[in-house]
This record gives sequence, structure tokens and C-alpha cells, in this order.
Amino acid sequence: MRLAQLSERSGVPAATIKYYLREQLMPPGRRITATQAEYGDDHLRRLRLVRALIQVGKMPVATARQVLAAVEDESLDQNMRLGAAVRALPHGPEPDEDDPATVIARQEVGLLMERLGWSECRDVGDSSPAWRTLVAAVAALARLGYPCDAGHLAPYARSAAQLAVADLDLVEEFTTPLEQVEAAVALTVLYEPVLLSLRRLAEAEESNRRFGAGG
Amino acid sequence: MRLAQLSERSGVPAATIKYYLREQLMPPGRRITATQAEYGDDHLRRLRLVRALIQVGKMPVATARQVLAAVEDESLDQNMRLGAAVRALPHGPEPDEDDPATVIARQEVGLLMERLGWSECRDVGDSSPAWRTLVAAVAALARLGYPCDAGHLAPYARSAAQLAVADLDLVEEFTTPLEQVEAAVALTVLYEPVLLSLRRLAEAEESNRRFGAGG
Repeated sequence: MRLAQLSERSGVPAATIKYYLREQLMPPGRRITATQAEYGDDHLRRLRLVRALIQVGKMPVATARQVLAAVEDESLDQNMRLGAAVRALPHGPEPDEDDPATVIARQEVGLLMERLGWSECRDVGDSSPAWRTLVAAVAALARLGYPCDAGHLAPYARSAAQLAVADLDLVEEFTTPLEQVEAAVALTVLYEPVLLSLRRLAEAEESNRRFGAGG
Repeated sequence: MRLAQLSERSGVPAATIKYYLREQLMPPGRRITATQAEYGDDHLRRLRLVRALIQVGKMPVATARQVLAAVEDESLDQNMRLGAAVRALPHGPEPDEDDPATVIARQEVGLLMERLGWSECRDVGDSSPAWRTLVAAVAALARLGYPCDAGHLAPYARSAAQLAVADLDLVEEFTTPLEQVEAAVALTVLYEPVLLSLRRLAEAEESNRRFGAGG
């Protein structure tokens, strides 16, 4: 298809597609004349991922480019490629190493991984951005005196493990390795607000059950 | 205790406490002389909540004030007070009513609530900010052509229901109704980054299990 058609089928304005091409967020089309190029379904799919990262995930172009570089890195096996792509996504705040609460948090996170038998994560440890975000978030709880020991974190981790099964089931609905990595990245970003809003709705249900007038 | 002690015990600088007092994010101390006031454990607790909202949750002062007004509203029963306080928290984007994907999303969210028997949420529906955020998030998935029907959303909702049980168990560790509402608000905010980072770590475990070299 031509650029105009790609724009029509994706709903993305032609000028925006040209910008993504210039920024190398998408591979160029197959050149057919000096001024025209041909685009395929892989371009349509990539456009969808770029929109997920930039428009929904509010990611800077440079970050999106790093994520896409990991997505495309065929030198890695599927597990490492998935890991590299998700690690390139933006993360929460870094732990404050001058804060004594960070020491407590790092200990509890380590204990939690031990208890759950998350050996992959334990091995990677602090070099994983998600691990560091978790340490920073647990440190914030510790600093403010809210419950945040491994025992209190465990039910959250067990729910997260179930979520990961749902995530990877979704990913495996896609066929080729490239499509799977693209989907893993997009769905990690796009399902975060789904999850947070479902949690608040579920809290309302549970609160009504426990404290409601009919309860 | 005096302001200096409140600052020492909370780790919040005295100038910041004075600012919170001026902005009416905390009730004034009990005046003992023309220039000095006495503060209690309730001030210490409130300070912790204000820090959770403003420093960790990055909330504007005006939003934090609204949340606190709901926390303090004793005219409501415990369930309504919890609901009002969580609804006053910042939420994700609003649905775009001009987008056909929003129509699909609203339908799937309604179907999901029906299937799960979340009758409290279904009754409140679109007037709940978490519901509207969910509709907007599902619409983003629909617009980009990613799976987002009630069937695909159901495992996420079931995990959210388990998270809500963990959340309310935590809340019920606190004694008085006021402490419980304060904790519910703080923990809703503070556990979001915990949850999102645990999900990414669990994804790495699950990906290693499915695609890893040893798998």
C-alpha cells in the first residue's frame, strides 16, 4: 500500500507517519519510484506499536527508539529480546541510596524474591530497572511507616504472577517472534492503566462488601 | 509535642510542616501560648498521609486538599467515605467521546462488570472516575487493534479482585475508621508502583519459564 493508504488504514495522519519515518521509528517503505514507496502489513503493525509507546505511553522519541532497537535485535533469543525490550521502557523513580529506608526495602525485596522462588529476578537483582523501582516504592512505604515487609508484599507478588501468566498468554496469541515481542511491549504499556483502574473498581466492590450498608 | 519535635519524628522539615498547616492540609495544633502549639500522634499520622499524596503521589496541593476533605467527612458511612476519598485521587485520561473505539470499550467494560458480578461498580458506572479511566484505556487498545474484549480483560479483573482483598486486609489492620480511610488512600497511591514493578518482574520470570534457554 502507499503512504496515503497506510494513513487511512492506521488512522494516523500522513504527516505523522512521515515524522516517524524520519525519526527511524519505522523501517522505510520499499522504494518503487523516486518519490513513492510501498508499505506492508509489518508497517501497519509497527505503526500501532509506535502509537502505543508515544501517544498512549507518552514516551519521548529517543526512548521509543531504544525500545524498538531491542524489539528488532535478532541476535538475542526470545526471552532475552523480550527482557531487553521491557527493560528499555520508562520506569519509576530510582532508589535514594542516602536514605536508610532504601536499605530496609532492598532487604525485604530480596527476601520476597527468595520466598517466591523468583530466581531469574533474584539473579538479575539491582541491575533490573523494575527491581530498582520496586525498591524505591517499598522504601517510600518504609519511610512513611506503612506496612511493606515481605509478608505484606507477598499477596501483591502472587497477583502479579497471575497477571504475568495473562500477559504471556496474550503475547503467545501472536504468531512470529517479532510480533510477539512487539505485542509484549505494547501490552505491558497499554494494560497498566487497565490494571490500575480495575484495582480501584475492585476496591470499591470489596469495600462495599465489607463496610457497605447491606454488608 | 512541639513543631520541632513533630519535624524530628516525621523527618519533614519544620518549614514544610508550616506550609502544610497554612495550606490547611493538616488541622492546626492545640494553641498553648501566643506563639506555640502542641501537636499529637494524629498530626504525625496526617503528615505521613500528606507526604504520600504530595511527595510520592506528586499530587497538586488543591487535589490533596480535596482528598483530605473526603477523608474527614464524618457525615458519610465508612464505605462511602472510602469511596469518596479514592474517587478524589487523580485518575488517568478521560474517554474521548468522539472516538468510535470508546463505544466498543464502554460495551466491553459493561459486559465485564456483568460477568464478574461487580454490581456496585455497574450501578455507579460512568460516574466513577476509575470506570472512565478503564473505558479510555480499553479504547486505546481497541483503537490500536490489540485484544481488549471482556474475555481478554477477565483474568486482569480477577487478579484485581485479589489485589482488592489484599488492600482491604491491609486497611483493616488499622484501628479507627479515620485511620482506615487515611490508610486506604495512602496505600492506594503507594502500592501502585509496587504493583507495576512486580508485574514487570513476574513477566520476566514467566518469559524465562516459557522462552528461556533452560525452558
